Amino acid sequence: MLVVHKYGGTSVGDLERIENVTNRIIKVKEDGNDIVVVVSAMSGETNKLVGYAKHFTSEPAKKEMDMLLSSGERVTASLLSIALQAKGFDAVAMTGRGAGIITDDTHTYARIESIDPTAMQNAIEQGKIVVVAGFQGTNKEGSITTLGRGGSDLSAVALAGALNADRCEIYSDVDGIYTTDPRIEPNAKKLDTISYDEMLELSSLGAKVLQSRSVELAKKLNVKLYAKSSFSDNKGTLITKESNSMEEVLVSGIVLDKNQARVTLRGVSDRPGIAAEIFTMLAEANINVDMIIQNMGTDGSTNLGFTVPQSEHENAKKLMESFNHDMQGMDFDEHVCKVSVVGVGMKSHSGVAAAAFTVLAQNNINIQMISTSEIKISMIIDENYGELAIRTLHEAYGLDR
Amino acid sequence: MLVVHKYGGTSVGDLERIENVTNRIIKVKEDGNDIVVVVSAMSGETNKLVGYAKHFTSEPAKKEMDMLLSSGERVTASLLSIALQAKGFDAVAMTGRGAGIITDDTHTYARIESIDPTAMQNAIEQGKIVVVAGFQGTNKEGSITTLGRGGSDLSAVALAGALNADRCEIYSDVDGIYTTDPRIEPNAKKLDTISYDEMLELSSLGAKVLQSRSVELAKKLNVKLYAKSSFSDNKGTLITKESNSMEEVLVSGIVLDKNQARVTLRGVSDRPGIAAEIFTMLAEANINVDMIIQNMGTDGSTNLGFTVPQSEHENAKKLMESFNHDMQGMDFDEHVCKVSVVGVGMKSHSGVAAAAFTVLAQNNINIQMISTSEIKISMIIDENYGELAIRTLHEAYGLDR
Repeated sequence: MLVVHKYGGTSVGDLERIENVTNRIIKVKEDGNDIVVVVSAMSGETNKLVGYAKHFTSEPAKKEMDMLLSSGERVTASLLSIALQAKGFDAVAMTGRGAGIITDDTHTYARIESIDPTAMQNAIEQGKIVVVAGFQGTNKEGSITTLGRGGSDLSAVALAGALNADRCEIYSDVDGIYTTDPRIEPNAKKLDTISYDEMLELSSLGAKVLQSRSVELAKKLNVKLYAKSSFSDNKGTLITKESNSMEEVLVSGIVLDKNQARVTLRGVSDRPGIAAEIFTMLAEANINVDMIIQNMGTDGSTNLGFTVPQSEHENAKKLMESFNHDMQGMDFDEHVCKVSVVGVGMKSHSGVAAAAFTVLAQNNINIQMISTSEIKISMIIDENYGELAIRTLHEAYGLDR
Repeated sequence: MLVVHKYGGTSVGDLERIENVTNRIIKVKEDGNDIVVVVSAMSGETNKLVGYAKHFTSEPAKKEMDMLLSSGERVTASLLSIALQAKGFDAVAMTGRGAGIITDDTHTYARIESIDPTAMQNAIEQGKIVVVAGFQGTNKEGSITTLGRGGSDLSAVALAGALNADRCEIYSDVDGIYTTDPRIEPNAKKLDTISYDEMLELSSLGAKVLQSRSVELAKKLNVKLYAKSSFSDNKGTLITKESNSMEEVLVSGIVLDKNQARVTLRGVSDRPGIAAEIFTMLAEANINVDMIIQNMGTDGSTNLGFTVPQSEHENAKKLMESFNHDMQGMDFDEHVCKVSVVGVGMKSHSGVAAAAFTVLAQNNINIQMISTSEIKISMIIDENYGELAIRTLHEAYGLDR
């Protein structure tokens, strides 16, 4: 079996933890498997380097940042390889370039364009453990690029795909995907399995275990993905294709996102293109709009609602003022949160949304906005009720059982 | 004018010092010159990384060490480039590979085989300040290699040669080459000019300002080399071809090397090849032999003397025991030091050596071994008299005037 492991910053946070990781890798190797390991920078290193750069300017050049930040993962990869060799195992450290990762030219947020796995395959054939510096590649001109926040997850999944690996295990300090945040709901249960689509909804909604781009890529390449902890032997959560057994499950998880501010535009005049104007203006100001809801008003005009990150609330407010004459009124609220119910089972079961609305109403929680997809219901509510809503919904869907 | 600057670890030891270095570079640029800057790792970084690797094994793999250690210079190069950009100057950071440096395959001690300066030249033509991570290149297969201790000096000289630069300035915390170590002889004078050959003798004898391989290369490529301090505006020392005016100078400098242990083999039987056997055995044990002196003894047998680093003294002693039956006696002394007098003037002046022997005798300093080259006299003496010998010789050759 060919296995890809990825270890995050806390898992390789100091020399003892790197040593701990070697034991995990050696076990896989001794069980007769081939293994490729992708590593992040030691925790704190990337922030330290970013701090150095910010000492000189708030907007350092992206090309230089890539050369700067890619060094952290290289240090970990070399050290892990040395640590494996010290235990008598044949290991080889590779940079992103060495592993054959070619990206586009978008420095600090590059996309992987292709992977030539020859060097890795040759090393594997020679019985070597391959240790790859995550988060990085090079563009066609040979400049170092990085893949953006959480990019080592993406490296791992992409390499697993290129190598046609049997599984890709992502190690962090969290031992899997939970039905909801255990800090809010102590009865939260770890899921054995979750589908790519559910995981995408969960990770883009604020579950920090897996970078969403890497889940997207895993889905596209059909990589069997595991979320595991490097600090325990728990079996973790498998993220995979939707299986028949999943249809039994209505709801997989409940997610709370507190970084939300709501904007409601009432009685927007129905001249064509006004929504386009509004969202183009927000996009040009780099304001990341999350939920968007449009409804017909009573008089033929439109009500338009959307949410933005709380830090962008004031900016959004200012921008909207230029549309004052185009509508009857505006309403802003930064004291809201988003509660989402995620599950592939929803697709084929009616009543899932109704159940959510019912239990929230029973707890006197007012729903300000609703948005639904095939496998998700998101609701904007008062931020004071966020945790209560999570616990209520978690129980209502029987996730604590 | 095209200028290459190289800044050592203490010169870029923290963010304020990197900022200080930008001012120096900007001045050169604003005076209408083109400039390529080579940087070392921030002081302490390389040792930190070596310490990390040694945590796992005393002999980490050299390939991995190169990937590990090369990261330090990359961090400095990116940060310096960012700092220059922050001040409104167009700068670009390059790795050794990016600068076109191709080496052989000798990891941790690679030799530069070729440099393709196209990328640097293109950047210079665009008016950019080029900042290159020192100490590194890649072999033909694309693996990162490093150039050994002091390798950033070598990078700077090699790039200056490849770019046909008008000068190469090596910045450290020392403001030039002195007639002797000012900590021993307060009257030591900074030299305005010194020849490559003299500098080679000085640097290989323990003057730490310039790596000797870089002086060799500067001589070969005829690069005008300056040793300067990044902490002052002193004009430094020019290392260049021998000029006519140099012939006036008998002696340029006096050097003390305390890391010496003496081995004397008395009455070595004169069977052919015994010296070869002895030194082959030492070489195979990786013991670096410095001075070697062979004299005829009174009875036709040979007396053989050599020095080794003090740390290798015990090993050398053990190895020599296997030759016991081949000689009359052995004598070991690790409490010795080497005092050397260097100067191109010696070539054409007799009496330079005699003057050294005379003043040492006048001070009751016994000379145990003598070795001379065209431009150097080295003497092994009791280590307790090292400093006295330096001061005595410094005065005798009028270097304090």
